[in-house]
Amino acid sequence: MLTINRLSHTEAQTLIEGARLKALEIEVPMCIAIVDESGNLIAFERMNGAKITSITIAQDKAFTAAAARKATHEYNAACVPGNLVFGIHTALGGRLCVVGGGLPVVVDGEVVGGIGLSSGSPQQDMACAEAGLAYLERQLGNVR
Amino acid sequence: MLTINRLSHTEAQTLIEGARLKALEIEVPMCIAIVDESGNLIAFERMNGAKITSITIAQDKAFTAAAARKATHEYNAACVPGNLVFGIHTALGGRLCVVGGGLPVVVDGEVVGGIGLSSGSPQQDMACAEAGLAYLERQLGNVR
Amino acid sequence: MLTINRLSHTEAQTLIEGARLKALEIEVPMCIAIVDESGNLIAFERMNGAKITSITIAQDKAFTAAAARKATHEYNAACVPGNLVFGIHTALGGRLCVVGGGLPVVVDGEVVGGIGLSSGSPQQDMACAEAGLAYLERQLGNVR
Amino acid sequence: MLTINRLSHTEAQTLIEGARLKALEIEVPMCIAIVDESGNLIAFERMNGAKITSITIAQDKAFTAAAARKATHEYNAACVPGNLVFGIHTALGGRLCVVGGGLPVVVDGEVVGGIGLSSGSPQQDMACAEAGLAYLERQLGNVR
Repeated sequence: MLTINRLSHTEAQTLIEGARLKALEIEVPMCIAIVDESGNLIAFERMNGAKITSITIAQDKAFTAAAARKATHEYNAACVPGNLVFGIHTALGGRLCVVGGGLPVVVDGEVVGGIGLSSGSPQQDMACAEAGLAYLERQLGNVR
Repeated sequence: MLTINRLSHTEAQTLIEGARLKALEIEVPMCIAIVDESGNLIAFERMNGAKITSITIAQDKAFTAAAARKATHEYNAACVPGNLVFGIHTALGGRLCVVGGGLPVVVDGEVVGGIGLSSGSPQQDMACAEAGLAYLERQLGNVR
Repeated sequence: MLTINRLSHTEAQTLIEGARLKALEIEVPMCIAIVDESGNLIAFERMNGAKITSITIAQDKAFTAAAARKATHEYNAACVPGNLVFGIHTALGGRLCVVGGGLPVVVDGEVVGGIGLSSGSPQQDMACAEAGLAYLERQLGNVR
Repeated sequence: MLTINRLSHTEAQTLIEGARLKALEIEVPMCIAIVDESGNLIAFERMNGAKITSITIAQDKAFTAAAARKATHEYNAACVPGNLVFGIHTALGGRLCVVGGGLPVVVDGEVVGGIGLSSGSPQQDMACAEAGLAYLERQLGNVR
């Protein structure tokens, strides 16, 4: 039998809170999604004014980061025509998302979930995702 | 020009809170989804221990209730072989959900969103959805 | 943080072996799928002569049993027109399978995965799924 | 009437075994998929620790290699903007996979199946797929 560590619902809410505070600071309403280590949704929030398309994109970013254990912007950098990874962005019916803004949640060296942000520029999305991780880290220690 | 009334994010969280309190009371961890009047997700919560399949089903119940402006258990009652509505349960690739547990959120006689619960029996799901509405009503008045 | 128990790959192979032995005994080549507690595929085997349609159906049965923590034949019994659960069989794009032959794998009272069989009659599929569980139980104890 | 040569289940397991041995050697847990000459799954294995996203990607690589009778890295090389093949990576809802790691299984000059690996870099995936073919070859002769 394998023993797996997984984000709790409370920790998911902490991640959302940290990301939302950053979104409020930069004044870009965001869609914020948190998934567990298997890529399944734990919590989601669409701030007033966030984009409709971002409902799915935020979830797909969080899914990708957790289930592939890689930040979506790292896939983005590798997903260039001529590179052997190119084409990964259409996998899983396009659900594998290579747009920046999805980060794995790593605790004590292990991926326990993923966070995905969408509605701003990829840089803004990434900054809010980072803010979510930092906010959880202050509570747990050893996050990332 | 049309003017549309729509649940805010805060009101969505209030609905979730009311449903969660009922789920805790009956000791059935639930997936809880809130959508706006267009059927688009505003907020989602998977309580620790809720079912993986319910992640999508809760969202589809909320979507159906808001976008079709009808409780999913009302569709269920009509969706019987020989009745002209039968077959509606496969519409939208199965996203139109006729399993009990999805209710429209009606304020001042107008559908402003939907709430969907999943993980228990349909009766338990419906009770928690009702509890969400009642909780919001205490704050807003005139809900339903 | 939550701590989750999950079937290992070796245990998945044991389940397949037990199911295959039964399939050979009744002379019905089967598709056999094993998923983890989140519904994600661990191992799959199509015996020579098993049906092509069963490739997906076996996986969907295993997924449903694990992710909804319920045997697919139990859903089947409840999924009757007029019952509030009716319509669940079209959920998740039809991936939620209510055809007999999917069983949760329960160890020490906890769902740690699912097994799905397809290619025979539902009764044959169920018998082989049961045989898989029994085979694992002889090795682990406390299965189911 | 056509007579078709197709991998047996035993041969599929041999391919998986060869690929797994290489994966263990390079210490990258892999998802390994084997399909027949029609692209239909025969056997699948997710080693402990392999990625969730790779469950589908490994299968899609094997499917593409067998059903299009071409290694996925060869598609990758051709799938460059300006080249007339470009765009093939979105075909079949993205199931046609152009990421390196899928190889046709060729016996006596004929494609009898496909092997797909995923979880490492494309180069690691390709090396393990090659190892699977080499392992089968030692048993059958004339593979590739």
